[in-house]
Amino acid sequence: MQAQRKAPIGISKEASRRWQENYERVTQGSGRLFLMAGDQKVEHLNDDFVGSTVAAADADPEHLFRIASEAPIGCFATQLGLVAQYGGDYPEIPYLLKLNSKTHLLPGAEHDPRSRQWQSMTQVQEFMQHVDVPIVGVGYTIYPGSEFEAEMQTEAAQLIHDAHQLGLLAVIWAYPRGRAVGKREHDPHLIAGAAGLVACLGADFVKVNPPLNAQGEAEAKLLGEAVAAAGRTQLVCAGGSEVSSADFVRRLDAQLRDGHSAGCATGRNVHQRSQQEAVALCRAIHSLVVEDRGLEHALALLQED
Amino acid sequence: MQAQRKAPIGISKEASRRWQENYERVTQGSGRLFLMAGDQKVEHLNDDFVGSTVAAADADPEHLFRIASEAPIGCFATQLGLVAQYGGDYPEIPYLLKLNSKTHLLPGAEHDPRSRQWQSMTQVQEFMQHVDVPIVGVGYTIYPGSEFEAEMQTEAAQLIHDAHQLGLLAVIWAYPRGRAVGKREHDPHLIAGAAGLVACLGADFVKVNPPLNAQGEAEAKLLGEAVAAAGRTQLVCAGGSEVSSADFVRRLDAQLRDGHSAGCATGRNVHQRSQQEAVALCRAIHSLVVEDRGLEHALALLQED
Amino acid sequence: MQAQRKAPIGISKEASRRWQENYERVTQGSGRLFLMAGDQKVEHLNDDFVGSTVAAADADPEHLFRIASEAPIGCFATQLGLVAQYGGDYPEIPYLLKLNSKTHLLPGAEHDPRSRQWQSMTQVQEFMQHVDVPIVGVGYTIYPGSEFEAEMQTEAAQLIHDAHQLGLLAVIWAYPRGRAVGKREHDPHLIAGAAGLVACLGADFVKVNPPLNAQGEAEAKLLGEAVAAAGRTQLVCAGGSEVSSADFVRRLDAQLRDGHSAGCATGRNVHQRSQQEAVALCRAIHSLVVEDRGLEHALALLQED
Amino acid sequence: MQAQRKAPIGISKEASRRWQENYERVTQGSGRLFLMAGDQKVEHLNDDFVGSTVAAADADPEHLFRIASEAPIGCFATQLGLVAQYGGDYPEIPYLLKLNSKTHLLPGAEHDPRSRQWQSMTQVQEFMQHVDVPIVGVGYTIYPGSEFEAEMQTEAAQLIHDAHQLGLLAVIWAYPRGRAVGKREHDPHLIAGAAGLVACLGADFVKVNPPLNAQGEAEAKLLGEAVAAAGRTQLVCAGGSEVSSADFVRRLDAQLRDGHSAGCATGRNVHQRSQQEAVALCRAIHSLVVEDRGLEHALALLQED
Amino acid sequence: MQAQRKAPIGISKEASRRWQENYERVTQGSGRLFLMAGDQKVEHLNDDFVGSTVAAADADPEHLFRIASEAPIGCFATQLGLVAQYGGDYPEIPYLLKLNSKTHLLPGAEHDPRSRQWQSMTQVQEFMQHVDVPIVGVGYTIYPGSEFEAEMQTEAAQLIHDAHQLGLLAVIWAYPRGRAVGKREHDPHLIAGAAGLVACLGADFVKVNPPLNAQGEAEAKLLGEAVAAAGRTQLVCAGGSEVSSADFVRRLDAQLRDGHSAGCATGRNVHQRSQQEAVALCRAIHSLVVEDRGLEHALALLQED
Repeated sequence: MQAQRKAPIGISKEASRRWQENYERVTQGSGRLFLMAGDQKVEHLNDDFVGSTVAAADADPEHLFRIASEAPIGCFATQLGLVAQYGGDYPEIPYLLKLNSKTHLLPGAEHDPRSRQWQSMTQVQEFMQHVDVPIVGVGYTIYPGSEFEAEMQTEAAQLIHDAHQLGLLAVIWAYPRGRAVGKREHDPHLIAGAAGLVACLGADFVKVNPPLNAQGEAEAKLLGEAVAAAGRTQLVCAGGSEVSSADFVRRLDAQLRDGHSAGCATGRNVHQRSQQEAVALCRAIHSLVVEDRGLEHALALLQED
Repeated sequence: MQAQRKAPIGISKEASRRWQENYERVTQGSGRLFLMAGDQKVEHLNDDFVGSTVAAADADPEHLFRIASEAPIGCFATQLGLVAQYGGDYPEIPYLLKLNSKTHLLPGAEHDPRSRQWQSMTQVQEFMQHVDVPIVGVGYTIYPGSEFEAEMQTEAAQLIHDAHQLGLLAVIWAYPRGRAVGKREHDPHLIAGAAGLVACLGADFVKVNPPLNAQGEAEAKLLGEAVAAAGRTQLVCAGGSEVSSADFVRRLDAQLRDGHSAGCATGRNVHQRSQQEAVALCRAIHSLVVEDRGLEHALALLQED
Repeated sequence: MQAQRKAPIGISKEASRRWQENYERVTQGSGRLFLMAGDQKVEHLNDDFVGSTVAAADADPEHLFRIASEAPIGCFATQLGLVAQYGGDYPEIPYLLKLNSKTHLLPGAEHDPRSRQWQSMTQVQEFMQHVDVPIVGVGYTIYPGSEFEAEMQTEAAQLIHDAHQLGLLAVIWAYPRGRAVGKREHDPHLIAGAAGLVACLGADFVKVNPPLNAQGEAEAKLLGEAVAAAGRTQLVCAGGSEVSSADFVRRLDAQLRDGHSAGCATGRNVHQRSQQEAVALCRAIHSLVVEDRGLEHALALLQED
Repeated sequence: MQAQRKAPIGISKEASRRWQENYERVTQGSGRLFLMAGDQKVEHLNDDFVGSTVAAADADPEHLFRIASEAPIGCFATQLGLVAQYGGDYPEIPYLLKLNSKTHLLPGAEHDPRSRQWQSMTQVQEFMQHVDVPIVGVGYTIYPGSEFEAEMQTEAAQLIHDAHQLGLLAVIWAYPRGRAVGKREHDPHLIAGAAGLVACLGADFVKVNPPLNAQGEAEAKLLGEAVAAAGRTQLVCAGGSEVSSADFVRRLDAQLRDGHSAGCATGRNVHQRSQQEAVALCRAIHSLVVEDRGLEHALALLQED
Repeated sequence: MQAQRKAPIGISKEASRRWQENYERVTQGSGRLFLMAGDQKVEHLNDDFVGSTVAAADADPEHLFRIASEAPIGCFATQLGLVAQYGGDYPEIPYLLKLNSKTHLLPGAEHDPRSRQWQSMTQVQEFMQHVDVPIVGVGYTIYPGSEFEAEMQTEAAQLIHDAHQLGLLAVIWAYPRGRAVGKREHDPHLIAGAAGLVACLGADFVKVNPPLNAQGEAEAKLLGEAVAAAGRTQLVCAGGSEVSSADFVRRLDAQLRDGHSAGCATGRNVHQRSQQEAVALCRAIHSLVVEDRGLEHALALLQED
């Protein structure tokens, strides 16, 4: 388990108190984060939500909220617009507002990724003034190596600052990408670079894709360089495409144990399952990440399902 | 019939009350929307307003207002500039201000679509403070897949937020378009993706073009994926190019019945007709969408004309 | 003669009163406008102001002010910077501030036209607070079909709104132009489209170039489609390159009579003449446009000269 | 000698009084301006400040201030950053803050010139509130014909307006340039066009390069068209590359006498000389421009040196 | 030793007092600066922080703070985000906030460098209001010759102004770079040009790369032109890639003695060493730069290590 975090400096006492409260809430006292990622309806449009291997319930955005309200997650990251529509009926979920999103329609071979902040932090603040649901933080994706990296890094730096002023957590999705990056996007050293960059931005958590070795295979211990480079910015690993629940749990256990990650951020592996299966998987994840009860216990939880 | 909507959260009680009032007004208690679209004088310049198959009266913009004031529409969507000029004489029409528009002069093969917000929401608010006519909402078009999608999605997200703060409805026209989209713009799965994206933006309604099957034919049930993906954002279908009144009504009936759409948004099919014919068609649409009295009744209303 | 205009809605009572006052002033109660255009020192640099067919006095910008102060014009449109320098000596001229201008140096075959607002409306307001000369309105040029049309249409929409809030008139110069438009810029149907677009922007007047028929000749009745499309936005025709005074007056008479235009906007045909000839031509124009005394009377006024 | 100038209208009485004071100060009652230009450390980097024909003292930026404080100049134009560092030691110099500058590193054959305002006028005002040195005006360069002309013309228009609101003079450096201009940048007619454009911007002075005739030679009387086109905006001629002091003085005399320019703006010809020579040349310039004592007297002053 | 600096003019008395205090603090009364540069986690991602020649401790960002807190540095330049996370535990370090950073992922042959300010000066001020750690100044990198130089020079000018208003020092990293510069980036004359440009921006210090002679070798006396061109803006030399401690100290001594630089800015040469070695090198640097005790003493300090 990681040591307790202190709030960043440069904010008011009240903001510091709120940040601490939000940090405790999402890590449930464990210092580790289980983030349920639900921003794919923009990033992947409807590709993740229908298909032969996808639960029928996933066609409806409310599926995300149903899972998030029943499962023991740290926070649920999704767009403000969805929270505005469903949040009133699911007021117990800790929400992390994902503030930028782009579609995957523009081909990477011709267009470097460019994602722009949707709502301003002033609008986020306005939103928060009128809701009773817990808004614990904000999220934003950067693409180091894109020819538009400068504008995204500036937006990220500014929203992290503003989030902290309000006592909110800031989580950065960091994916090296663009024509200059090409196939190196899974390179452990490059991912470590991105993680270090996010530390300089001052985020509380950085979400990275799992690094691959020279053979193109995921190896948990490859995370080590990135975890070190991120310093006090805690690193969580993206879940990636769908695998079996047991495989997912094993991979996560390795990331926590061998990679020293500080949790996980998973989307498709959760929401593409039925409500029951999704909640069971979330319980197993929670058991590993937050309760630290080991792989066997987590696998056993899956069996119960 | 769909269940009643609740106002989005994150707004003041007063804004919530106004939103509810506006929602009731445009759906006339039915939970479904008949939007008369009148933004084509920019989008298509004068192409839709003159020609051998177009009523002579349509050459004058006031034709739109004459129809909208006599016909039982949910709201009339047009540019603020026209409302500023004609609204004083047609104070009973519920107006939806369409805040962006572009011409069709730039060829799509060379230029991805780019449409920018005309008036700021501060200007809209200033406008509303001084009018007695009902302004029920705002509209905006996005083009997912355009290389400019990021700037349009940000403008859309911000104006939806600001509209809700004022208690206004927000309707998004969502058309996948651009060189990366090409001929796929009528693909049901892509349209569903766009509808889901709009849900994430937090709009109250999304207007899409009717999806086509592999043979290039419209099939109402193809709307199902999009309606599901849109979740609580209600989906209305664009009317498309001119057909006979009876065919229009049959197509709409199928969209409502088989496609589970929440209404329709039609422009040319209404305004290219004479005042009398246009109003008759609107009555038939209203009978289907709002009164839910079935196809036969709607067709009979056309005969009366 | 056209019916009297009402002020746009969405503005304060005081602004409405001022707008009415300005409208009366520039149309001199006739409902028609004679706008003297004097923005060519940027648009055409010095090309219009020297040459064998140009009066020597025209080399000096003050020539414009001398004419405008002596001739019975509706308003004189020029840049704020010139008004700041000469307006104090010509305080009786009704000024319309032309807020954007570009040079003709960039070749159209490589660069679509892009013209940006010079002074902000806040600056215009600041300017007005300190002057005793009548500022009756603002002007702006848009180029539908340019790849930069979006930014110009947004600037136009916003300044029209702001002008109306201050009780100022708004006049839009609308010229379809750019590589996508090419040689179609004189097409009557396209000009009608531009006029309709300006109606949607909410301008009080639109200035268009005279449409040409398939043989490339001006025909006044071709204006009809544009006048209809513009609706309550009144249409005035640009004067074009220099012709004899008598020919100019005949062409204008046809535009008013057969084309149903609401006046004229002329620059070169006025300022390239000597003070005496320019004033005589302006009197003839005024007699046609404002006094509606017919062609013979106008031609007779030229003879007096 | 030119008639006295009146302050522009559209500004407060206090601003008008200050403008008059600044105008008197820089023209020393003569209605003509001797501007010492010192912005080349950015425009030409270090090229003008070292070399076999350059005084050794010129390597140090303070050289500019030493000359400006001893010589009878109208004002010294340089960047705010230099004034912030040296101004406290040279509090008697009337400073004109040059607000934009670019390097000459980007080749003109590939990049049209683009120069952006450095400090905002709000920052200039903040600066002025805390200094005891006389800030008499601001300067800005525009490049008509550059594909970026729109953004520079807007910045220029806005800063001229804001300068006048503060009672500051506004001087525009106007150089037609860019691939569309090519070799025509010395064309008298084009320079006249640029001068007329600056009049429309409302500047008090325009600085142009000396026009050349068809043989590529400078001819003072070619300035006539530009002086006329500039109207009440007074025209001063740039000094150009280094010549002998006597030749410089003869050329200037011709510009004043035959070209009717309203002074000169010179940089390299002054600062590339030793302090003593530079001051002597400035005295000769002052004698011609401000005292109007004729060429012989000016040449004699050089001999004294 | 250089003479004491005076604060720039144009700022309040309180700001002037604070500037003086910060200047004294970072130069420790010597008038020279030893800046420890720690912005490479973005500029070079993780490349500088792992590898066979890099101390293992350097993998963790806290290494930078451990060195900076123990070594006698003038100030430690790093991103605000890192200071927000670590500053609370290292409250004795004088921090200089580096406000822009970019990655090295985009190849220079295709992309001119573009680096954008991360936090606004308003955010910096907000940050400072809530911290007890000494923030002594801000830093920013410009790339003269990049096609984006205009936007960077404007950001630099504005933040220098704003920093001075707050009594903060402003340090500019100035690297001529881009396709138009190519291999000339080490040219002494071009570096002098960049240094002069920074003087015009009004920065207190300029950091340049060591110029190379025609043979590609560093020669300390080549700095002379740049030191002169920078005038009152004091010049410090970047440390460059890693060399032995003794070689580093010898090179620095030459830069100070023969090149008349005002200190050094070094990163990799410090942080790639173990805590003990890094501190020892810093002591040697401090002895040279601040204490001015000569090369022998500095080398001796290294031996102690």
